[in-house]
Amino acid sequence: MAKRSGQLKLNAFHYVSGHHAAAWRRPEASADDRIEDYVAFARLAEEGRFDAVFLADSVDVRLLHPEGAARKAHTGATLFEPLTLLSALSAHTSRIGLIGTASTSFSDPYNLARQFLSLDHLSGGRGGWNLVTSNDPEAALNFGHARPVPHAERYARAEEFVDVVLGLWDSFEDGAFRRDRDSGVYFDLDKLHVLDHQGAHFRVKGPLNAPRSPQGRPVVVQAGSSEPGKELAARTAEVIFTAQQTLAEAQAFYADVKGRLGKYGRAPDELKILPGAFIVTGATESEAREKFDELQSLVHPDVGLELLRVQLGIDLRGYDPDGPIPDLPDTAGGKGRQALVAALARRENLSIRELYLRIAGARGHWQLVGTGAQIADQLEERFVEYGADGFNVMAPVIPGGLRDVIDHVLPELRRRGPFRTEYEGRTLRENLGLKRPENRFAARAAVAAE
Amino acid sequence: MAKRSGQLKLNAFHYVSGHHAAAWRRPEASADDRIEDYVAFARLAEEGRFDAVFLADSVDVRLLHPEGAARKAHTGATLFEPLTLLSALSAHTSRIGLIGTASTSFSDPYNLARQFLSLDHLSGGRGGWNLVTSNDPEAALNFGHARPVPHAERYARAEEFVDVVLGLWDSFEDGAFRRDRDSGVYFDLDKLHVLDHQGAHFRVKGPLNAPRSPQGRPVVVQAGSSEPGKELAARTAEVIFTAQQTLAEAQAFYADVKGRLGKYGRAPDELKILPGAFIVTGATESEAREKFDELQSLVHPDVGLELLRVQLGIDLRGYDPDGPIPDLPDTAGGKGRQALVAALARRENLSIRELYLRIAGARGHWQLVGTGAQIADQLEERFVEYGADGFNVMAPVIPGGLRDVIDHVLPELRRRGPFRTEYEGRTLRENLGLKRPENRFAARAAVAAE
Repeated sequence: MAKRSGQLKLNAFHYVSGHHAAAWRRPEASADDRIEDYVAFARLAEEGRFDAVFLADSVDVRLLHPEGAARKAHTGATLFEPLTLLSALSAHTSRIGLIGTASTSFSDPYNLARQFLSLDHLSGGRGGWNLVTSNDPEAALNFGHARPVPHAERYARAEEFVDVVLGLWDSFEDGAFRRDRDSGVYFDLDKLHVLDHQGAHFRVKGPLNAPRSPQGRPVVVQAGSSEPGKELAARTAEVIFTAQQTLAEAQAFYADVKGRLGKYGRAPDELKILPGAFIVTGATESEAREKFDELQSLVHPDVGLELLRVQLGIDLRGYDPDGPIPDLPDTAGGKGRQALVAALARRENLSIRELYLRIAGARGHWQLVGTGAQIADQLEERFVEYGADGFNVMAPVIPGGLRDVIDHVLPELRRRGPFRTEYEGRTLRENLGLKRPENRFAARAAVAAE
Repeated sequence: MAKRSGQLKLNAFHYVSGHHAAAWRRPEASADDRIEDYVAFARLAEEGRFDAVFLADSVDVRLLHPEGAARKAHTGATLFEPLTLLSALSAHTSRIGLIGTASTSFSDPYNLARQFLSLDHLSGGRGGWNLVTSNDPEAALNFGHARPVPHAERYARAEEFVDVVLGLWDSFEDGAFRRDRDSGVYFDLDKLHVLDHQGAHFRVKGPLNAPRSPQGRPVVVQAGSSEPGKELAARTAEVIFTAQQTLAEAQAFYADVKGRLGKYGRAPDELKILPGAFIVTGATESEAREKFDELQSLVHPDVGLELLRVQLGIDLRGYDPDGPIPDLPDTAGGKGRQALVAALARRENLSIRELYLRIAGARGHWQLVGTGAQIADQLEERFVEYGADGFNVMAPVIPGGLRDVIDHVLPELRRRGPFRTEYEGRTLRENLGLKRPENRFAARAAVAAE
């Protein structure tokens, strides 16, 4: 296969004070409760011409159990709610995309469809929904469940949920609103469509009380790496955020998912694969290495074990921290992520301590430490060798780590060609190179009229 | 009882192109899909020193049935989602409160608590939640129900819902976050509280993953006029938005609700009663009258009958429009509002046509047409005679009608004393004269320590 040309896509993944578990202990890190800091991050990412700000989410207080760990917790005990935060950020930015995470397990499809479409209108067509099914066991207890929802059940619900949302987003056709003052006709009833969904999990009549957005509808992003996750993405996602460490793993995932699109009548470029890339950089290699080592030295052991509990779904307190990782039980947690972290431990024969230090920054994602040129080499290789369409950039400390990427890595990528110097379009779809989707009801009417 | 002194409170109630059903047919009216128009309204209201922007809501396409009416519908087929819209408006304003409507029947308490608390943080303590139970029959069909939810069931759920939300808002005590970089202690576990709610409608463990806001928590607003609605408000509301037409009705409602506070251990001034006031004003009485007559002439009969269907819950097509209103059946709809509209029809012996023209502007609320001095007389009377603590101002056309109130009515009120020239505080509570509530868990701990 020939090496590819073209341009890669970059999201700026915001996470409280930074992605490294000890980021908040650095004096220059953002606070997690000051809206001004989020505004500064979004503006910085827009200055760097990133495609989008990307916000993760959880619907519980992370790191609550075991209780001892909470006292020494990294940030993430509280998280700004993504839809409200991104709506505020839409007013402080003008070109960058705004992608927020929301769970199909703990949301209602009518409300979620409406809020993301509203964000898309508020931002002039820059909204995106990162669909997750929530593998976090504590979250279920906040939504009426007595225990975590099993993986298969979460995905069955998600399959139906996304269909309802996509259907509701097409409730009005483009141009439905005539607002004819003279005749008093406000909208064309022929361009209003009732979904009337009746399924195993949801009964939703519709229509949604919101018009289509400038980009048609929000971009659908997903993050599942499990088998049902990949299948759902192949059918319905437009962007995948995934965790891939080696080039070989990335290429295998890329080929696997792109290969599934055809059976859903989709072309490979209708889905962009953007693995996470945790990047520590500086003017020299030793400067980058020192920044990273300083952060690693600030990881409290309680926090390290708690990270493993969240990522692996098991409590490793009581084991020898310098001994091997024990065999992992099958759990209802996120199988994709858990398997990736376990594979990392086995491949490199890591101790418990070495493993928690390996995920303290990247949390299972690809970790890059070096100069701008060294990092650009690796990103470019993964792009041209069909391991990724771009990356979800995870800065170790926010905002300084993102500034480092802008100052050191992006100029290298621009010099070589594969990253933009200016936005191509006004909407997130235009910048990502995704087509504006046709309204499903209008498309059907066009076929019927042939 | 002595006439009261002090100052009245004013909210600026935004509704698409204006509150009059024909507002959108005026060329100067705001469009319902342009964020710029919402921003202009919020800034205008802040310039007028209104306490808050108030947004109503519905979770369906209003006026969909009977289908014929949709073609001639007034605006309101689509509505910006309040939480996302207000979050964006928080970035464009700095002092005015931001009150949004959300339904206890069709929302989840964890998500709702989190989004309103996020709005409260984003705005620096200016958020408010207008709790409704949704009397709109079509809405239920968008949330898994086969038919409208009966009134009593909606209120039973609302009682439990608000308790969960208030409990979640106190998950962290003020000052819980130490963020001590040296020791690595992020927050005090002692200041984190698990709600562990187990009730008939909800099981919510908590805690909520958001700290308390600058004003402690969002202001709770309610609008119920029925018996369970008044009781819920007396127990939990801090502002009531109500519809009262005559001074006598307003005084009776005011005395009734304020009289219920004592049994919940609350003082009368812990709840502000702000009836709707639909105000058409101008430099002269004839100018105000002409503005109103022009709007009335633009009400299409299909729209008039549809308004009666929404307000009364019955379809009056087929009846003689110049004949009397027939007897009204008991329905699951909003009994409070329906009873008010029916009482208006009977009191003034109105025909069907006269009734729909009477509610085409104010939708059952108090309707005032006149000069600034004439309107200030009436507002002041209702305030000093204990009929209201202030008003939710409904402009006929947006934004011009609000500009008229600022130019003609507010200078009269300021001259007489009962309205501010500058904001008293930084938060919505400070401006409304409401105390910052203590955290329930901190309060209990303080009692236990005595």
